[in-house]
Amino acid sequence: MGNFCLIYKMNTNEVNAGDFVKITTSDKIFEGHLMPEYELESKEFLFVKLKSGYNVGIRKDRILNTEIIKINAEKGILEGEGKEESDFENAAGKILILATGGTIASKIDYITGGVKPAFSANELLSTVPEISKTGVEISGKQILNKFSENLTPDDWIKIACEVYNSVKKGAKGIIIPHGTDTMHYSSAMLSFMLKNLNIPVVFTGAQRSSDRGSSDATLNLINSIYFASQAEKFNDKGVFVLMHEGIDDKFCVVFRGTRVRKMHTSMRDAFKGDKFARLSFFEKKFERSVKKEANLTSNNPQVILDTKIEKNVMLLKYFPTLTPEIFEILCEKYKGIVIEGTGLGHVNELLIGSIKRAIDNGKFIAMTSQTIFGRINMNVYATGRRQLKAGVVPCEDMFPEVAYIKLMFALGHYNKYEDIKNFMLTNIAYEINERSEIK
Amino acid sequence: MGNFCLIYKMNTNEVNAGDFVKITTSDKIFEGHLMPEYELESKEFLFVKLKSGYNVGIRKDRILNTEIIKINAEKGILEGEGKEESDFENAAGKILILATGGTIASKIDYITGGVKPAFSANELLSTVPEISKTGVEISGKQILNKFSENLTPDDWIKIACEVYNSVKKGAKGIIIPHGTDTMHYSSAMLSFMLKNLNIPVVFTGAQRSSDRGSSDATLNLINSIYFASQAEKFNDKGVFVLMHEGIDDKFCVVFRGTRVRKMHTSMRDAFKGDKFARLSFFEKKFERSVKKEANLTSNNPQVILDTKIEKNVMLLKYFPTLTPEIFEILCEKYKGIVIEGTGLGHVNELLIGSIKRAIDNGKFIAMTSQTIFGRINMNVYATGRRQLKAGVVPCEDMFPEVAYIKLMFALGHYNKYEDIKNFMLTNIAYEINERSEIK
Repeated sequence: MGNFCLIYKMNTNEVNAGDFVKITTSDKIFEGHLMPEYELESKEFLFVKLKSGYNVGIRKDRILNTEIIKINAEKGILEGEGKEESDFENAAGKILILATGGTIASKIDYITGGVKPAFSANELLSTVPEISKTGVEISGKQILNKFSENLTPDDWIKIACEVYNSVKKGAKGIIIPHGTDTMHYSSAMLSFMLKNLNIPVVFTGAQRSSDRGSSDATLNLINSIYFASQAEKFNDKGVFVLMHEGIDDKFCVVFRGTRVRKMHTSMRDAFKGDKFARLSFFEKKFERSVKKEANLTSNNPQVILDTKIEKNVMLLKYFPTLTPEIFEILCEKYKGIVIEGTGLGHVNELLIGSIKRAIDNGKFIAMTSQTIFGRINMNVYATGRRQLKAGVVPCEDMFPEVAYIKLMFALGHYNKYEDIKNFMLTNIAYEINERSEIK
Repeated sequence: MGNFCLIYKMNTNEVNAGDFVKITTSDKIFEGHLMPEYELESKEFLFVKLKSGYNVGIRKDRILNTEIIKINAEKGILEGEGKEESDFENAAGKILILATGGTIASKIDYITGGVKPAFSANELLSTVPEISKTGVEISGKQILNKFSENLTPDDWIKIACEVYNSVKKGAKGIIIPHGTDTMHYSSAMLSFMLKNLNIPVVFTGAQRSSDRGSSDATLNLINSIYFASQAEKFNDKGVFVLMHEGIDDKFCVVFRGTRVRKMHTSMRDAFKGDKFARLSFFEKKFERSVKKEANLTSNNPQVILDTKIEKNVMLLKYFPTLTPEIFEILCEKYKGIVIEGTGLGHVNELLIGSIKRAIDNGKFIAMTSQTIFGRINMNVYATGRRQLKAGVVPCEDMFPEVAYIKLMFALGHYNKYEDIKNFMLTNIAYEINERSEIK
């Protein structure tokens, strides 16, 4: 991955990545920490992390009469290391950051060139000095430090418990910095585990680590705090995901925790779904979706934590060489399977006999689509109708990952086919859109 | 699904679905076949299939002084039933339609209200009378009649052989009407099975059946023929997918057969990927992508058919409760597995030991992403690097379905890890985009 201990030579100065520098170009002066060169970035640019938390790329050939001031050589890039956790126990009225790890809390490993979890909740907080001027009171706590591909159901339960405890202590809003890989799985699970939430719980993350040029970490964190601080005014409650929108550095977009999905490996605006709002702290804009939402709010002001889930559930993407033999092995191993079928919700008709036998043996089989978007409709084609007759439950327009999470929750609570089916087809946490008009 | 043998009563006339009618509204006159009422459509509209092949919806309350002319009562909706296959053997210089079934060749079953395969290649041809005026010579042949969720590898081979034979007979272009559910699997497989194609082979389909209001069948078919007839001029060769674009009834979009994916269960513009061209027969527009393509054309003018594939391959979508135990069972059953990992190409680190053992035992494990879009990069995070070290092959920016198809083809030809890996990472049929600039 290249050499990240580069020494930049400019004029007569030698500076190391991490030094505080002042760079004068023909038309501007930049002050900040010099960032390590990143193999994938152009070799023509220097990246400087400005005091505002933003990273700026400066063309090397535009640097004229350079003046580079070494202030704290080799100290590392971000401030705040070694700080004590702030006053977390006194949560009332505060916005809490419950950090779990992921790219948002990562920096580049100078030895391997890769990215590793590295920042604590308070270090994350220190990257958003703008927020201190708003008067919003914030505390941070580290509850996990994992990349999200390594999260297990026990981690979902851990996060849900921490959120629950913080709500009980009177938190005004909760931000959960989280790896982006499985953020939509975690946000969906918390949407089911936490009932009657009367504050916003906002998952956020970063596609590019905090010490990289073009990082989205700071913007996503600032806007999460902005969203949470405005939530009371707009009566926004529940679990949300907030991430970067578009290609500029201004707007973020907010989704319900059950209506969003990561749709790109590396772009900053990777998260797609049904927009709940878009907002920009720096532009002071807060635009809300005009889409009518189901009314799922409860009059019960008491938040309820319910972490009973059945882990023995599979998300099975159909593929044309899937045989009844393999399908039957999987049916033996799992209590429930959410199939990602083709189109409106199909699998090869050769599998329908095995599906029927599995359902007759008490397994629960639900159907979603590998098209990702759109609603399941198993009434249109013979293959679908035969599956319906066998007992397959069509999961409306739920994302496959959300249906999988919901089935884990459903099987943790119900045993009877009709009860599980009824739960799966009831809109619990905005995971199902009302049937839309035919276009 | 409702009653499709409706008798519409208007003024004193009684007409059945399928009758040829003339309907006069306050501002227009429509002539065509009355279509069956479809449950999902509004009860306020009548749908008439015009002579042009288009379906039009007419508000019932706008029908004033109605004059309805019964011409061929109860004959069925489309012309052409019972026709002989046209002069297929004399293929030279012609555009051939090799029909395989699917919604494009379907009509609504009046008894069940569902959709079933029903039209032959020549019946399909009869729906596009506009084409006859262009002087393009077309023949049709029925090679399969299946909904695409039921296709098996043997069907891919059958289609590839039929295409090969038609190319050898001198066909100028080949259109393959096909179910949309797995069209992108079939188009990918044919892209690998047919080398040195010197004509366009165009997969097309319909999201809504030919006798429904808002059907995209005719438009897709007309534009496929339009695309194929223009291909010589533009030197367009190889396997393509052509489907509806946007929400109006004008444009279609063309993709390489390896760079497209069905992304919505029901919308007509469900197919997304890298656009090769967009075009409109009726608007006489043919806009080509400005994106630079790899040069993969061969100087060998002889088309080669190569159908050696290994069927024992799995496409495995990672999910957070996937255990090493299940993964190891699957590794025993398959010769190769394409994993749909999270983000840049990850699975829970708990699986890495099992992955390494599988690879050491001669299984081939490739990595794609369940984000669908974007490039795999397993160098950034520790989880990815450990997988790379175990021997997992990162499939660049191939769609998961395409990597799965390609691995079937690769394992049909190579035994050694390095040979398979080399084939997987070589751009054979436009399935890999060159690495793009960092944004």
